[in-house]
Amino acid sequence: MAASSVRNRARMLISCPDQPGIVAAVSQLLFQHGANIVRSDQHTTDPQGGTFFMRVEFDLPELERRTPELRAALSGLAGRLEMRWELAGSLPAKRVAIFVSREDHCLVELLWRWRAGELPCTVAMVVSNHPDLAHAVEPLGIPFHHIPVSTESRASAEARQLELLEGRADLVVLARYMQILSADFVARWPARIINIHHSFLPAFVGPSPYRQAWERGVKIIGATAHYVTAELDQGPIIEQDVQRVTHRDNPEDLRRVGRQIERAVLARAVAWHLEDRILLHGRRTVVFH
Amino acid sequence: MAASSVRNRARMLISCPDQPGIVAAVSQLLFQHGANIVRSDQHTTDPQGGTFFMRVEFDLPELERRTPELRAALSGLAGRLEMRWELAGSLPAKRVAIFVSREDHCLVELLWRWRAGELPCTVAMVVSNHPDLAHAVEPLGIPFHHIPVSTESRASAEARQLELLEGRADLVVLARYMQILSADFVARWPARIINIHHSFLPAFVGPSPYRQAWERGVKIIGATAHYVTAELDQGPIIEQDVQRVTHRDNPEDLRRVGRQIERAVLARAVAWHLEDRILLHGRRTVVFH
Amino acid sequence: MAASSVRNRARMLISCPDQPGIVAAVSQLLFQHGANIVRSDQHTTDPQGGTFFMRVEFDLPELERRTPELRAALSGLAGRLEMRWELAGSLPAKRVAIFVSREDHCLVELLWRWRAGELPCTVAMVVSNHPDLAHAVEPLGIPFHHIPVSTESRASAEARQLELLEGRADLVVLARYMQILSADFVARWPARIINIHHSFLPAFVGPSPYRQAWERGVKIIGATAHYVTAELDQGPIIEQDVQRVTHRDNPEDLRRVGRQIERAVLARAVAWHLEDRILLHGRRTVVFH
Amino acid sequence: MAASSVRNRARMLISCPDQPGIVAAVSQLLFQHGANIVRSDQHTTDPQGGTFFMRVEFDLPELERRTPELRAALSGLAGRLEMRWELAGSLPAKRVAIFVSREDHCLVELLWRWRAGELPCTVAMVVSNHPDLAHAVEPLGIPFHHIPVSTESRASAEARQLELLEGRADLVVLARYMQILSADFVARWPARIINIHHSFLPAFVGPSPYRQAWERGVKIIGATAHYVTAELDQGPIIEQDVQRVTHRDNPEDLRRVGRQIERAVLARAVAWHLEDRILLHGRRTVVFH
Repeated sequence: MAASSVRNRARMLISCPDQPGIVAAVSQLLFQHGANIVRSDQHTTDPQGGTFFMRVEFDLPELERRTPELRAALSGLAGRLEMRWELAGSLPAKRVAIFVSREDHCLVELLWRWRAGELPCTVAMVVSNHPDLAHAVEPLGIPFHHIPVSTESRASAEARQLELLEGRADLVVLARYMQILSADFVARWPARIINIHHSFLPAFVGPSPYRQAWERGVKIIGATAHYVTAELDQGPIIEQDVQRVTHRDNPEDLRRVGRQIERAVLARAVAWHLEDRILLHGRRTVVFH
Repeated sequence: MAASSVRNRARMLISCPDQPGIVAAVSQLLFQHGANIVRSDQHTTDPQGGTFFMRVEFDLPELERRTPELRAALSGLAGRLEMRWELAGSLPAKRVAIFVSREDHCLVELLWRWRAGELPCTVAMVVSNHPDLAHAVEPLGIPFHHIPVSTESRASAEARQLELLEGRADLVVLARYMQILSADFVARWPARIINIHHSFLPAFVGPSPYRQAWERGVKIIGATAHYVTAELDQGPIIEQDVQRVTHRDNPEDLRRVGRQIERAVLARAVAWHLEDRILLHGRRTVVFH
Repeated sequence: MAASSVRNRARMLISCPDQPGIVAAVSQLLFQHGANIVRSDQHTTDPQGGTFFMRVEFDLPELERRTPELRAALSGLAGRLEMRWELAGSLPAKRVAIFVSREDHCLVELLWRWRAGELPCTVAMVVSNHPDLAHAVEPLGIPFHHIPVSTESRASAEARQLELLEGRADLVVLARYMQILSADFVARWPARIINIHHSFLPAFVGPSPYRQAWERGVKIIGATAHYVTAELDQGPIIEQDVQRVTHRDNPEDLRRVGRQIERAVLARAVAWHLEDRILLHGRRTVVFH
Repeated sequence: MAASSVRNRARMLISCPDQPGIVAAVSQLLFQHGANIVRSDQHTTDPQGGTFFMRVEFDLPELERRTPELRAALSGLAGRLEMRWELAGSLPAKRVAIFVSREDHCLVELLWRWRAGELPCTVAMVVSNHPDLAHAVEPLGIPFHHIPVSTESRASAEARQLELLEGRADLVVLARYMQILSADFVARWPARIINIHHSFLPAFVGPSPYRQAWERGVKIIGATAHYVTAELDQGPIIEQDVQRVTHRDNPEDLRRVGRQIERAVLARAVAWHLEDRILLHGRRTVVFH
């Protein structure tokens, strides 16, 4: 279901050791505070000693005024249940910073969906190590920051990027940003950087993956959107998709097909993050569609 | 997730007018009776005045002994909330009667999945208007009933079928059974008969639908599994799937592809029914995967 | 494979009554004129008395200079084989006119693919019965013609449209153009108007098809791109695609998913037309991917 | 299109260095010998100095009697064009040996499609290192050979297998045969052994791949059918397919879904081989669907 940017609607994400009574306790608490549950999803990795995950979307009249007391009550419950929780109103919308290099397909897709009302966010800025895509961004009134990056300037470039992000963004989307972020940068934005990369059956390491896939004659290519962690391209997977190819497709064709998959997969992953549909569980994600 | 035929595991399906507090009330009730919720899904058609649906899967020690008191408590709650509810233990498994004619693809698929442990049921009988498929059924120890049907004998044939089903089956699966059941038969088995039929974009009425689809040059063909109602092929849709075809496929190829879709779609629909994942809402289904 | 806008590359489309020797005759003729076949696809509806279709892509040095003699030779062969044929160089590219109303998803997709080099054409103009989308078109240097249409003004509006198209376009793409073209307009542009519309399993006629699909609880929605004929939405199908939906999706969600399918399906259909991959056979298409 | 086991129908597979005139020469030759081309597919890796592939399906009255002279003519042409070629009549059908271990899903699928007329072959034998599946094979009149394999007995077991295959089979299908064939065995059956294995995005090496995939939270799992070469699981890919999974699926669910993909992918790959649709090009396949 599409994101709702409805007044007085909030979303709560919960994870805790599984035990009887969690759903009862949480739903009772919400009921007592006057909330009406619009949607609720749960997942347990194992009813005996596993981890329990819950996402609740609810309407609460005068949400803003009542949030402090709701937070206080949740804190109390969280203590009893060893529960991690987040509470987010639909408003104000999350602020997104998009990082790009020269390829525009992911950027254009995100901007189109944002303008179509399909991404409940504000686009706070676009950051690029190249000036090329300013023309796609500035007419929309979005700040475009050109920050060149070289081996020598990486540290200062990242410092500048972090400065720009500070207090202005809630999520960083790497929309075909062809630079590797440092472990330090990543550590400052845990589970708040989303990346997209190609995927193949089987996987290919090293340069020119599309050429390798072509040489091996794969019949399916794909893309994976994931949270960025210190392990390159190994962070928790949010979404994947694939498309068929044939022997007629040359490496350039595969790249072209790959771009179509990438933009769709990244856009879905970003939407789900913005709608607070994703919970992290170690290296895995729980995504409540 | 696969059906679990776990001891002391039960499933509850609920529907009622939406209002605040339902989840809290139900989960509280289960908690007080010692149940541990393993999985829970909810859906509301509209938080303001819509219909609320819930499916809860839970473990309850000594399930059988405690079921009567749980039922009593649920009846009380149901009165307050105008709630329709069903409570089903995983055991004993539902009993399925499969109706077939001459084509075996759906029958073979169901039997294979049943033997592979993927359909939590017993196969109570196979009923056919032709004797052809007895060989696929009897070696498995399943009763095969050959009941010929003609225009004249329809009424007596249905009487014989109903007699066989009485007290011996919980679900009837029309696995390419090429006879139309009477409105009276259907009325006796509401939401307990599942049928499979072909589907196309666009739809074609009349005979030889695959030939019509071929003449129109469709690029995608499909199949739909649905509950049988008095309106022919118009009952609530449970599951659908499709596959691509090309101009190279002749009508016989389309029929062959159609068979592959039919057997997969029907098997999934039957599994979901057996796992109590489907709730009816007028002409629509809510399917909690 | 992507369209190649390669110098000295040409494409030939052939259809004729099937008989032995067609491939031999055509390939011999091309060989004798110095052409090197890069790709060739054939299809016969029936080797005995059916219709034979062939698409050949070939390289011919000094293509432009030699085209007249090649055409002459083909005319001779065509006489012997009762053959309809078309010969098209990759250059100059076909000229496309896009008709839109207020929804921009198909227009934006076509323009993006065109700028990304995935549509081998020039965009000659955008025509709309509303002024809304001028902003997406004019910055690209493409003429935007606002031609309002009402019941009274339809005839004069179409006259104005035909005048604009005359000598300036080779293909008309209805990219969510919410006006019905007259039979006369359609007759002047046979197999040169492509339209996109939603498709469902089963089909729904009448207004608000997404609402109808939702009421019926369909699990799959789709879109169909087709050539426009005098029969509304019944022209030869070029491409179709689908996507899964669930009970959680409301009518607006279905519309949103539908838009994603529409833009992808229309873009593929247009690309195939521009690459001369489509042959017509009565109400069917042969599409050589 | 389905395999046709039509009298007097033959298929020819060709590969050679690309140069102008190949299609003309081949089709001319067939025409002169009285053949009517029913279907023809070509592919070139590069019109300038690449490799050319062609598959022709044709009808030739009195095929058997005329085959020797056709072969002689083709040999002559092959000399001129440095052409590798194969000529196969639809009859007699190829003979298939199926190797299995304990899991029956691929075996059952192959046997079902064979009985349904979808695999144009005879099933010459089933070979297994376990006795378990004899019951699924012997009632169909197919010889079942139980040949146990241990580290010590591998060599003698393979000797026994090769002896059984000699002169009795044209293709070996590893239908979840959980033993590794020796390099020597593989070398004796080049491009005539088809295997199926799981595939994931990303790939996982080592034991328990489904558990690894689950731990990593993949959203898509798949299967790959390939020709067996000395490099384990690295042979030319024939077909692949995938299916979506979610966080709700546990490792056993993934295995179950994987089985469904495996049986469908293997069955398609085997059908294409039997219909002579596959040409090898180094580590890649050209598959003419």
